[in-house]
Amino acid sequence: MRNIKLTIEYNGTNFHGWQTQGKGERTIQNEIKTILEKILKEEILLIGSGRTDSGVHALGQVANFKTQSTMPALKIAKVLNSHLPEDIAIRNAKLVDENFHAQYSAHSKTYRYIVLNHDNRCVHQKDFCYRVPKKLNLNSIRTEAKSLIGKKDFKSFVAADSAANKKHKQKNTIRTIKRFAIKKNKEFVYFEIEADGFLYKMVRNIIGTLLKVGSESIPKGGVKKILNTKNRKIAGPTAPAKGLCLLKVKY
Amino acid sequence: MRNIKLTIEYNGTNFHGWQTQGKGERTIQNEIKTILEKILKEEILLIGSGRTDSGVHALGQVANFKTQSTMPALKIAKVLNSHLPEDIAIRNAKLVDENFHAQYSAHSKTYRYIVLNHDNRCVHQKDFCYRVPKKLNLNSIRTEAKSLIGKKDFKSFVAADSAANKKHKQKNTIRTIKRFAIKKNKEFVYFEIEADGFLYKMVRNIIGTLLKVGSESIPKGGVKKILNTKNRKIAGPTAPAKGLCLLKVKY
Repeated sequence: MRNIKLTIEYNGTNFHGWQTQGKGERTIQNEIKTILEKILKEEILLIGSGRTDSGVHALGQVANFKTQSTMPALKIAKVLNSHLPEDIAIRNAKLVDENFHAQYSAHSKTYRYIVLNHDNRCVHQKDFCYRVPKKLNLNSIRTEAKSLIGKKDFKSFVAADSAANKKHKQKNTIRTIKRFAIKKNKEFVYFEIEADGFLYKMVRNIIGTLLKVGSESIPKGGVKKILNTKNRKIAGPTAPAKGLCLLKVKY
Repeated sequence: MRNIKLTIEYNGTNFHGWQTQGKGERTIQNEIKTILEKILKEEILLIGSGRTDSGVHALGQVANFKTQSTMPALKIAKVLNSHLPEDIAIRNAKLVDENFHAQYSAHSKTYRYIVLNHDNRCVHQKDFCYRVPKKLNLNSIRTEAKSLIGKKDFKSFVAADSAANKKHKQKNTIRTIKRFAIKKNKEFVYFEIEADGFLYKMVRNIIGTLLKVGSESIPKGGVKKILNTKNRKIAGPTAPAKGLCLLKVKY
């Protein structure tokens, strides 16, 4: 069996995430799988690097599947793109080693969160950013974000909501944030965060907390304290899905 | 009368440009004017820095209007944004000198054209770029683009189509390109071009020509020759509207 790796871009706005438990919901995984099965005329197991939530976007989601077909990988990408809806595109496809597994082989993932820090809404980036009208203190945000870098217990940043917890049991809440860059370009603030893995809603909970730092409702040293407390209730709210994008999965 | 300057962002995809001659077509100018007249309860003359064609976008279009109203400029922006459709946003509004005229006071305009130089389509930028699958030679493009910088007669780059020429009589075809930057970021190529003014379809004709340079169907020195010939038929085709965006108007 040939093993094909896909790199996938999507606008998550009108999807119930990469994959859901429920039936009949529009998911990215299901859109691609359905078309693949038509093209290749066989049942396909499409393995994503991980789920992205409802409304979360991707520029570099990765998935793999095995096939009997001899169709070249780039041809599969081309045919997929001609059938997929406008909000999903296959950016790349290649033949990989049979042991490659989009989820288990991943070394790190990078997410980006975009905040529009401005009074007025925008148009071009409207689907991809979360607007915060009140001027953020970026110096405070940068200082506090440093406490999150390295191997830490992120229990305070795991989704608190109980229904979700049943689905996403997170026993081991230790993760390593390898890089956390915060850049400003005009009125946009870009948070880029790379880790060996992320807990359920971890990025959005971190961003929600840092936005509280930026609005000065969490004081200096607050983020370190939140980490040490290991209690989700102490951290900030979950930032909206629309600002979040899975940029890259490294293998 | 107070004079208000608006900075406007739009996705031009579903508009017949900033302004049209025809009746009943959806234009950006008309959407804003209609809402302004409702808010301010007076007739409004909304003057744009210039027209943008059907399908062309803006991040920084500028317009001004005079009003009897004492409503603060930022409040006008807020109310406009709450009424305007999602594909138009007022990014800024301020009170300016009564002599300020969005078109006649402009010193320069900057346009950006985005090319996606890749086999596969994209999602996030889909409305804002033109895709060229064949690998472009950027070195050739950069070299040839240099011939366009400075005060030149751009007659070869004025729209040839006769119906358009009747509307946009261009007797003086001399313009000054002050800056022409060509940057690459991953598979995207960004052309940024600043001039004291632009002829009708000049940017799209320049881009269409440079794309021919990039695919090596216009040889070295070809752009200089095209300029000197002063004949539209010699230059490349008009690049599609969707890649073009009015970035900034300087006063």
